[in-house]
Amino acid sequence: MTSSAIQDEYPDDVSHCYGCGRLNTQGLHIRSFWDGAEATATFTPAPHHTAIPGYVYGGLLASLVDCHATGTAAAAARQARGGSAQAAPPPRFVTASLQVDYLLPTPLGPPLQLRARPTDIAGRKIVVEVELSAGERVCVRGRVVTVEMPEHLVRPPSAAG
Amino acid sequence: MTSSAIQDEYPDDVSHCYGCGRLNTQGLHIRSFWDGAEATATFTPAPHHTAIPGYVYGGLLASLVDCHATGTAAAAARQARGGSAQAAPPPRFVTASLQVDYLLPTPLGPPLQLRARPTDIAGRKIVVEVELSAGERVCVRGRVVTVEMPEHLVRPPSAAG
Repeated sequence: MTSSAIQDEYPDDVSHCYGCGRLNTQGLHIRSFWDGAEATATFTPAPHHTAIPGYVYGGLLASLVDCHATGTAAAAARQARGGSAQAAPPPRFVTASLQVDYLLPTPLGPPLQLRARPTDIAGRKIVVEVELSAGERVCVRGRVVTVEMPEHLVRPPSAAG
Repeated sequence: MTSSAIQDEYPDDVSHCYGCGRLNTQGLHIRSFWDGAEATATFTPAPHHTAIPGYVYGGLLASLVDCHATGTAAAAARQARGGSAQAAPPPRFVTASLQVDYLLPTPLGPPLQLRARPTDIAGRKIVVEVELSAGERVCVRGRVVTVEMPEHLVRPPSAAG
Protein backbone atom coordinates (compact mmCIF):
# COMPACT_ATOMS: atom_id res chain seq x y z
CA MET A 1 0.00 0.00 0.00
CA THR A 2 1.46 3.35 -1.00
CA SER A 3 1.12 6.11 1.54
CA SER A 4 -0.11 8.75 -0.88
CA ALA A 5 -3.40 8.59 -2.74
CA ILE A 6 -3.25 7.93 -6.46
CA GLN A 7 -5.10 11.18 -7.13
CA ASP A 8 -2.57 13.17 -5.11
CA GLU A 9 0.06 12.17 -7.66
CA TYR A 10 -1.79 13.44 -10.72
CA PRO A 11 -0.02 16.35 -12.40
CA ASP A 12 -1.46 19.76 -11.49
CA ASP A 13 -3.11 20.35 -14.87
CA VAL A 14 -5.36 17.29 -14.42
CA SER A 15 -6.06 17.72 -10.70
CA HIS A 16 -9.21 19.86 -10.86
CA CYS A 17 -11.76 17.06 -11.00
CA TYR A 18 -14.84 17.75 -8.86
CA GLY A 19 -14.79 14.15 -7.69
CA CYS A 20 -11.12 13.60 -6.93
CA GLY A 21 -8.99 16.60 -7.82
CA ARG A 22 -6.86 17.90 -4.95
CA LEU A 23 -6.99 21.38 -6.52
CA ASN A 24 -10.80 21.61 -6.69
CA THR A 25 -11.62 23.54 -3.53
CA GLN A 26 -15.33 22.63 -3.75
CA GLY A 27 -14.85 19.02 -4.77
CA LEU A 28 -15.37 15.67 -3.06
CA HIS A 29 -11.67 14.79 -2.77
CA ILE A 30 -12.08 11.08 -3.30
CA ARG A 31 -8.72 9.44 -2.54
CA SER A 32 -7.76 5.92 -3.61
CA PHE A 33 -4.91 3.79 -2.29
CA TRP A 34 -3.34 1.09 -4.44
CA ASP A 35 -1.75 -2.02 -2.92
CA GLY A 36 -0.44 -3.58 -6.13
CA ALA A 37 -3.58 -5.60 -6.88
CA GLU A 38 -6.54 -3.50 -5.83
CA ALA A 39 -7.39 -0.01 -4.68
CA THR A 40 -9.38 1.00 -1.64
CA ALA A 41 -11.04 4.24 -0.64
CA THR A 42 -13.22 5.49 2.18
CA PHE A 43 -15.74 8.28 1.85
CA THR A 44 -18.26 9.70 4.29
CA PRO A 45 -21.12 11.47 2.53
CA ALA A 46 -22.37 14.78 3.89
CA PRO A 47 -25.91 15.02 5.30
CA HIS A 48 -27.09 16.83 2.16
CA HIS A 49 -25.98 13.91 -0.04
CA THR A 50 -29.35 12.31 0.46
CA ALA A 51 -31.63 10.48 -1.95
CA ILE A 52 -34.72 9.84 0.07
CA PRO A 53 -34.14 10.67 3.72
CA GLY A 54 -31.79 8.20 5.41
CA TYR A 55 -30.12 6.99 2.23
CA VAL A 56 -27.23 8.15 0.06
CA TYR A 57 -27.89 9.85 -3.27
CA GLY A 58 -27.27 7.52 -6.22
CA GLY A 59 -25.49 10.17 -8.25
CA LEU A 60 -22.94 10.58 -5.47
CA LEU A 61 -22.45 6.81 -5.38
CA ALA A 62 -21.91 6.85 -9.16
CA SER A 63 -19.34 9.63 -8.65
CA LEU A 64 -17.47 7.57 -6.04
CA VAL A 65 -17.43 4.55 -8.35
CA ASP A 66 -16.28 6.71 -11.25
CA CYS A 67 -13.32 8.46 -9.64
CA HIS A 68 -12.21 5.42 -7.69
CA ALA A 69 -12.18 3.44 -10.94
CA THR A 70 -10.17 5.98 -12.93
CA GLY A 71 -7.71 6.20 -10.05
CA THR A 72 -7.41 2.43 -9.98
CA ALA A 73 -6.81 2.38 -13.73
CA ALA A 74 -4.08 4.99 -13.38
CA ALA A 75 -2.25 2.98 -10.73
CA ALA A 76 -2.67 -0.29 -12.61
CA ALA A 77 -1.41 1.24 -15.86
CA ARG A 78 1.68 2.68 -14.22
CA GLN A 79 2.43 -0.66 -12.61
CA ALA A 80 1.84 -2.56 -15.87
CA ARG A 81 4.35 -0.28 -17.58
CA GLY A 82 6.94 -0.90 -14.93
CA GLY A 83 6.67 2.49 -13.26
CA SER A 84 6.74 3.14 -9.55
CA ALA A 85 5.15 5.74 -7.34
CA GLN A 86 8.56 7.29 -6.89
CA ALA A 87 9.51 7.41 -10.55
CA ALA A 88 6.61 8.93 -12.46
CA PRO A 89 3.12 10.35 -12.02
CA PRO A 90 0.32 7.95 -12.92
CA PRO A 91 -1.20 8.36 -16.38
CA ARG A 92 -4.61 10.06 -16.28
CA PHE A 93 -7.56 7.90 -17.24
CA VAL A 94 -11.08 9.11 -18.02
CA THR A 95 -14.37 7.26 -18.16
CA ALA A 96 -15.82 5.95 -21.40
CA SER A 97 -18.66 3.99 -19.86
CA LEU A 98 -20.05 3.66 -16.36
CA GLN A 99 -22.36 0.90 -15.14
CA VAL A 100 -23.67 1.14 -11.59
CA ASP A 101 -25.98 -1.40 -9.98
CA TYR A 102 -27.71 -0.35 -6.77
CA LEU A 103 -28.13 -3.63 -4.91
CA LEU A 104 -29.35 -2.19 -1.62
CA PRO A 105 -30.24 1.30 -0.45
CA THR A 106 -27.02 2.78 0.97
CA PRO A 107 -27.43 4.16 4.50
CA LEU A 108 -26.48 7.83 4.92
CA GLY A 109 -24.23 8.39 7.89
CA PRO A 110 -21.45 5.80 8.20
CA PRO A 111 -18.26 5.86 6.14
CA LEU A 112 -18.49 3.93 2.88
CA GLN A 113 -15.76 1.57 1.73
CA LEU A 114 -14.76 1.12 -1.89
CA ARG A 115 -12.67 -1.64 -3.39
CA ALA A 116 -11.70 -1.81 -7.04
CA ARG A 117 -9.57 -3.97 -9.25
CA PRO A 118 -8.68 -3.90 -12.93
CA THR A 119 -10.20 -6.87 -14.75
CA ASP A 120 -8.97 -6.15 -18.25
CA ILE A 121 -5.89 -4.16 -19.20
CA ALA A 122 -5.59 -3.62 -22.95
CA GLY A 123 -3.27 -0.81 -23.92
CA ARG A 124 -4.96 2.53 -23.24
CA LYS A 125 -8.22 0.89 -22.15
CA ILE A 126 -8.71 -0.61 -18.69
CA VAL A 127 -11.89 -2.13 -17.30
CA VAL A 128 -12.32 -1.74 -13.54
CA GLU A 129 -14.80 -3.45 -11.25
CA VAL A 130 -15.83 -1.65 -8.09
CA GLU A 131 -17.66 -2.70 -4.96
CA LEU A 132 -19.04 -0.20 -2.44
CA SER A 133 -19.97 -1.31 1.07
CA ALA A 134 -21.52 0.17 4.18
CA GLY A 135 -20.23 -1.92 7.06
CA GLU A 136 -20.49 -5.56 6.03
CA ARG A 137 -23.09 -5.02 3.33
CA VAL A 138 -22.23 -4.55 -0.32
CA CYS A 139 -24.68 -1.89 -1.50
CA VAL A 140 -23.37 -0.99 -4.96
CA ARG A 141 -21.41 -2.68 -7.72
CA GLY A 142 -19.85 -0.83 -10.61
CA ARG A 143 -18.11 -1.66 -13.84
CA VAL A 144 -16.21 1.15 -15.48
CA VAL A 145 -14.53 1.24 -18.87
CA THR A 146 -11.71 3.74 -18.60
CA VAL A 147 -9.40 5.05 -21.30
CA GLU A 148 -6.17 6.96 -21.05
CA MET A 149 -6.88 10.61 -21.61
CA PRO A 150 -5.84 11.92 -25.03
CA GLU A 151 -3.17 14.62 -24.74
CA HIS A 152 -5.22 17.13 -26.76
CA LEU A 153 -7.83 17.31 -23.99
CA VAL A 154 -5.49 19.03 -21.58
CA ARG A 155 -6.10 22.76 -21.47
CA PRO A 156 -4.71 25.32 -19.10
CA PRO A 157 -6.97 25.47 -16.01
CA SER A 158 -7.76 29.11 -16.77
CA ALA A 159 -9.79 27.93 -19.78
CA ALA A 160 -12.21 26.07 -17.50
CA GLY A 161 -15.82 27.12 -17.64
CA MET B 1 -45.99 20.11 -21.69
CA THR B 2 -46.99 20.67 -18.06
CA SER B 3 -45.93 23.97 -16.55
CA SER B 4 -44.54 22.50 -13.34
CA ALA B 5 -41.55 20.20 -13.15
CA ILE B 6 -42.20 16.57 -12.28
CA GLN B 7 -39.94 16.85 -9.25
CA ASP B 8 -41.87 19.84 -7.93
CA GLU B 9 -44.90 17.57 -7.57
CA TYR B 10 -43.20 14.92 -5.43
CA PRO B 11 -44.63 14.73 -1.92
CA ASP B 12 -42.57 16.58 0.68
CA ASP B 13 -41.25 13.42 2.34
CA VAL B 14 -39.49 12.34 -0.87
CA SER B 15 -38.31 15.80 -1.98
CA HIS B 16 -34.89 15.91 -0.32
CA CYS B 17 -32.86 14.33 -3.12
CA TYR B 18 -29.49 16.03 -3.65
CA GLY B 19 -30.03 15.79 -7.39
CA CYS B 20 -33.61 16.90 -7.77
CA GLY B 21 -35.32 17.55 -4.44
CA ARG B 22 -36.86 20.99 -4.13
CA LEU B 23 -36.34 20.80 -0.34
CA ASN B 24 -32.58 20.11 -0.51
CA THR B 25 -31.11 23.56 -0.03
CA GLN B 26 -27.65 22.43 -1.20
CA GLY B 27 -28.82 20.26 -4.07
CA LEU B 28 -28.68 20.52 -7.84
CA HIS B 29 -32.43 21.08 -8.35
CA ILE B 30 -32.68 19.15 -11.59
CA ARG B 31 -36.17 19.80 -13.02
CA SER B 32 -37.80 17.69 -15.72
CA PHE B 33 -40.80 18.60 -17.87
CA TRP B 34 -43.03 15.91 -19.35
CA ASP B 35 -44.94 16.41 -22.61
CA GLY B 36 -46.83 13.13 -22.65
CA ALA B 37 -44.19 11.19 -24.56
CA GLU B 38 -40.82 12.41 -23.35
CA ALA B 39 -39.27 14.61 -20.71
CA THR B 40 -36.81 17.45 -21.18
CA ALA B 41 -34.55 19.27 -18.78
CA THR B 42 -31.89 21.94 -18.96
CA PHE B 43 -28.99 22.24 -16.55
CA THR B 44 -26.02 24.59 -16.48
CA PRO B 45 -23.11 23.15 -14.49
CA ALA B 46 -21.18 25.39 -12.13
CA PRO B 47 -17.52 26.18 -12.84
CA HIS B 48 -16.42 23.77 -10.10
CA HIS B 49 -18.24 20.86 -11.80
CA THR B 50 -15.14 20.19 -13.84
CA ALA B 51 -13.46 16.93 -14.84
CA ILE B 52 -10.33 18.04 -16.54
CA PRO B 53 -10.35 21.78 -17.14
CA GLY B 54 -12.87 22.81 -19.79
CA TYR B 55 -15.07 19.74 -19.48
CA VAL B 56 -17.95 18.64 -17.26
CA TYR B 57 -17.39 16.10 -14.50
CA GLY B 58 -18.72 12.66 -15.44
CA GLY B 59 -20.24 12.07 -12.01
CA LEU B 60 -22.37 15.18 -12.43
CA LEU B 61 -23.46 13.96 -15.86
CA ALA B 62 -24.40 10.62 -14.31
CA SER B 63 -26.41 12.51 -11.68
CA LEU B 64 -28.29 14.46 -14.35
CA VAL B 65 -29.08 11.25 -16.22
CA ASP B 66 -30.17 9.57 -12.99
CA CYS B 67 -32.61 12.18 -11.68
CA HIS B 68 -33.98 13.03 -15.10
CA ALA B 69 -34.70 9.34 -15.66
CA THR B 70 -36.47 8.78 -12.35
CA GLY B 71 -38.53 11.91 -12.98
CA THR B 72 -39.43 10.64 -16.44
CA ALA B 73 -40.45 7.29 -14.96
CA ALA B 74 -42.65 9.02 -12.41
CA ALA B 75 -44.48 11.02 -15.07
CA ALA B 76 -44.82 8.03 -17.38
CA ALA B 77 -46.16 5.83 -14.59
CA ARG B 78 -48.77 8.36 -13.56
CA GLN B 79 -49.87 8.73 -17.15
CA ALA B 80 -49.97 4.96 -17.70
CA ARG B 81 -52.24 4.65 -14.68
CA GLY B 82 -54.60 7.29 -15.99
CA GLY B 83 -53.58 10.00 -13.55
CA SER B 84 -53.12 13.65 -14.39
CA ALA B 85 -50.89 16.36 -13.02
CA GLN B 86 -53.93 17.90 -11.40
CA ALA B 87 -55.26 14.74 -9.79
CA ALA B 88 -52.37 13.07 -7.98
CA PRO B 89 -48.68 13.42 -7.22
CA PRO B 90 -46.43 11.26 -9.39
CA PRO B 91 -45.26 7.99 -7.84
CA ARG B 92 -41.63 8.13 -6.70
CA PHE B 93 -39.19 5.97 -8.63
CA VAL B 94 -35.62 5.12 -7.62
CA THR B 95 -32.72 3.76 -9.63
CA ALA B 96 -31.88 0.08 -9.73
CA SER B 97 -29.25 0.29 -12.44
CA LEU B 98 -27.56 3.14 -14.25
CA GLN B 99 -25.61 2.88 -17.50
CA VAL B 100 -23.89 6.00 -18.80
CA ASP B 101 -21.88 6.17 -22.01
CA TYR B 102 -19.65 9.20 -22.47
CA LEU B 103 -19.57 9.65 -26.23
CA LEU B 104 -17.77 12.99 -26.32
CA PRO B 105 -16.19 15.19 -23.66
CA THR B 106 -18.96 17.57 -22.51
CA PRO B 107 -17.93 21.24 -22.65
CA LEU B 108 -18.19 23.10 -19.34
CA GLY B 109 -19.98 26.41 -19.73
CA PRO B 110 -23.09 26.20 -21.91
CA PRO B 111 -26.44 24.86 -20.70
CA LEU B 112 -26.90 21.14 -21.24
CA GLN B 113 -30.10 19.69 -22.66
CA LEU B 114 -31.54 16.36 -21.57
CA ARG B 115 -34.22 14.31 -23.29
CA ALA B 116 -35.61 11.07 -21.92
CA ARG B 117 -38.29 8.62 -22.81
CA PRO B 118 -39.56 5.42 -21.24
CA THR B 119 -38.77 2.42 -23.43
CA ASP B 120 -40.25 -0.32 -21.29
CA ILE B 121 -43.05 0.05 -18.74
CA ALA B 122 -43.67 -3.13 -16.78
CA GLY B 123 -45.58 -2.59 -13.57
CA ARG B 124 -43.30 -1.05 -10.96
CA LYS B 125 -40.26 -1.20 -13.25
CA ILE B 126 -39.63 1.33 -16.00
CA VAL B 127 -36.61 1.54 -18.29
CA VAL B 128 -35.71 5.04 -19.42
CA GLU B 129 -33.31 6.11 -22.16
CA VAL B 130 -31.66 9.49 -21.84
CA GLU B 131 -29.69 11.69 -24.21
CA LEU B 132 -27.63 14.66 -23.05
CA SER B 133 -26.51 17.33 -25.50
CA ALA B 134 -24.41 20.46 -25.53
CA GLY B 135 -25.71 22.54 -28.40
CA GLU B 136 -26.17 20.22 -31.38
CA ARG B 137 -23.83 17.53 -30.11
CA VAL B 138 -24.99 14.49 -28.19
CA CYS B 139 -22.28 13.97 -25.57
CA VAL B 140 -23.80 11.35 -23.27
CA ARG B 141 -26.31 8.53 -23.54
CA GLY B 142 -27.86 6.81 -20.55
CA ARG B 143 -30.05 3.82 -19.88
CA VAL B 144 -31.64 3.67 -16.47
CA VAL B 145 -33.64 0.88 -14.88
CA THR B 146 -35.97 2.52 -12.38
CA VAL B 147 -38.32 0.91 -9.88
CA GLU B 148 -41.13 2.36 -7.88
CA MET B 149 -39.91 3.07 -4.39
CA PRO B 150 -41.09 0.58 -1.76
CA GLU B 151 -43.21 2.29 0.89
CA HIS B 152 -41.03 1.01 3.73
CA LEU B 153 -38.12 3.16 2.55
CA VAL B 154 -39.88 6.39 3.46
CA ARG B 155 -38.63 7.75 6.77
CA PRO B 156 -39.27 11.09 8.37
CA PRO B 157 -36.70 13.59 7.03
CA SER B 158 -35.40 14.11 10.56
CA ALA B 159 -33.95 10.59 10.40
CA ALA B 160 -31.59 11.60 7.57
CA GLY B 161 -27.89 11.36 8.21
